[in-house]
Amino acid sequence: MADQFVHINGAIRPMGEAAVSVFDRGLLYGDGLYETIRVRNRWCIRFDLHMTRLANGLAALDIRIPEIDFQTAIFDLLTANSLSDARVRLTITRGESPDAGNPTTVITAVPLSPHGLDPTKAIIISHRRDETSPLTGVKTINCLASVMSVIEARNKGADDAVLLNTSGNAAEATTANLFAVSGRRLLTPSLDQGCLPGTVRAAVLDLAPGLGLDAVEACIHPNDLGAADELFLTSAIRLARPIVELDGNTIGDGTYDICARIRESLLRDEQPEDG
Amino acid sequence: MADQFVHINGAIRPMGEAAVSVFDRGLLYGDGLYETIRVRNRWCIRFDLHMTRLANGLAALDIRIPEIDFQTAIFDLLTANSLSDARVRLTITRGESPDAGNPTTVITAVPLSPHGLDPTKAIIISHRRDETSPLTGVKTINCLASVMSVIEARNKGADDAVLLNTSGNAAEATTANLFAVSGRRLLTPSLDQGCLPGTVRAAVLDLAPGLGLDAVEACIHPNDLGAADELFLTSAIRLARPIVELDGNTIGDGTYDICARIRESLLRDEQPEDG
Repeated sequence: MADQFVHINGAIRPMGEAAVSVFDRGLLYGDGLYETIRVRNRWCIRFDLHMTRLANGLAALDIRIPEIDFQTAIFDLLTANSLSDARVRLTITRGESPDAGNPTTVITAVPLSPHGLDPTKAIIISHRRDETSPLTGVKTINCLASVMSVIEARNKGADDAVLLNTSGNAAEATTANLFAVSGRRLLTPSLDQGCLPGTVRAAVLDLAPGLGLDAVEACIHPNDLGAADELFLTSAIRLARPIVELDGNTIGDGTYDICARIRESLLRDEQPEDG
Repeated sequence: MADQFVHINGAIRPMGEAAVSVFDRGLLYGDGLYETIRVRNRWCIRFDLHMTRLANGLAALDIRIPEIDFQTAIFDLLTANSLSDARVRLTITRGESPDAGNPTTVITAVPLSPHGLDPTKAIIISHRRDETSPLTGVKTINCLASVMSVIEARNKGADDAVLLNTSGNAAEATTANLFAVSGRRLLTPSLDQGCLPGTVRAAVLDLAPGLGLDAVEACIHPNDLGAADELFLTSAIRLARPIVELDGNTIGDGTYDICARIRESLLRDEQPEDG
């Protein structure tokens, strides 16, 4: 980490010099949003989907779009940090003033974890997503429900948690979307259930017909999760990860046919066209 | 602001040198909490109530209590900034690592606004408090629902917003508790309705018998707010502020007898014992 660089408000700086004002509204009020992008061979996977979601989120929060070419900024940062595979995070806050239209932009790039694709034990948690919130679908930095859910999951011997919505139906995991396979049906909570519009979620829904699956965005009761043939999580960084256990009940051993084929397809998409 | 100082992790620094790491979890995930304390004549009003709520919040978030004497730190900061009346904010985040037990502490002190006690027009907003959340009652920095509610209120010609809970009953305003006077009854949402346990809320409940009022912590339907004799907001910084209009309907002209007497009593408590 000694030679790590960070992109902040348009300039690349050594990590030790990269800091944000204590009056930044991101720190004071969680007044901002973020994107986490998987980078393979210096290629930002599903970059356009991330940029679309970011623009929608900034509009929802009434934060001005920073005048930064994110693609160039990320390439420069990867070069500075000598990375070709990376987890890139873009964080944009409203800045120091609520009115000035002067947002703070931070970009970080760290190595991809080799453990990202491991099977997961999950619990259903008492923190909820409010599917009626005007902020539903915005990837804000108000992440405490997810933070505390992961802490509680780990304290109970699990790795991650599934959050229900205020109607008692499944919404998503702490930082991932949720999929269930039942026969030839591939189910995931619809966006009105309070989940984020995940980039890999969208890719998986696109893949389903080619795998002979009926993709269904639905209202899913937690009882239906336990009865599924396969359960898995999707996220930009960790792609598709099997859930092997939910609330202590075994779903399977994680060698899921559909999940594996989806993961292979997602990984294949990351190869350069000409090898 | 040129000579302003900030307290950060145990040391007082010039504002220009006071910054937090871009890897601080407060900035990345809103992983922290805060207190805002009213200071008059270098006296922290209701300091013990703030410290109790802070300790409860840190326990709820599983963040270690920083090894800082907050009272001394605040006095030193007031001296550095040449302030005797101030709005002091304490922000504590989990720091850079989820496991290291090395929280970040920031203390700022700025002048009290002279406009703090002005009457308020409020609207009822579509953002909600989740009264079932395990984080209810913790003053976290996940404030986006309040931030966006204020923006929407101002866009609609109001000053502040009243948030309902997921059951449709009144919870609180964006950064204040809510009181309604009906005859000799002084009503405020009970803590299980999803409001913060405000320090001035507690003080007002204590004051009520001396003013000949029955204080009732209750479940309050929004229709009952419109029918109240008086509506007012309470907060540590702004004490008791009349609501003169709710959703465009006039409640009164703001010269409320009970609200005024409560405010006078709160202000009297701020005078040094011997004049």
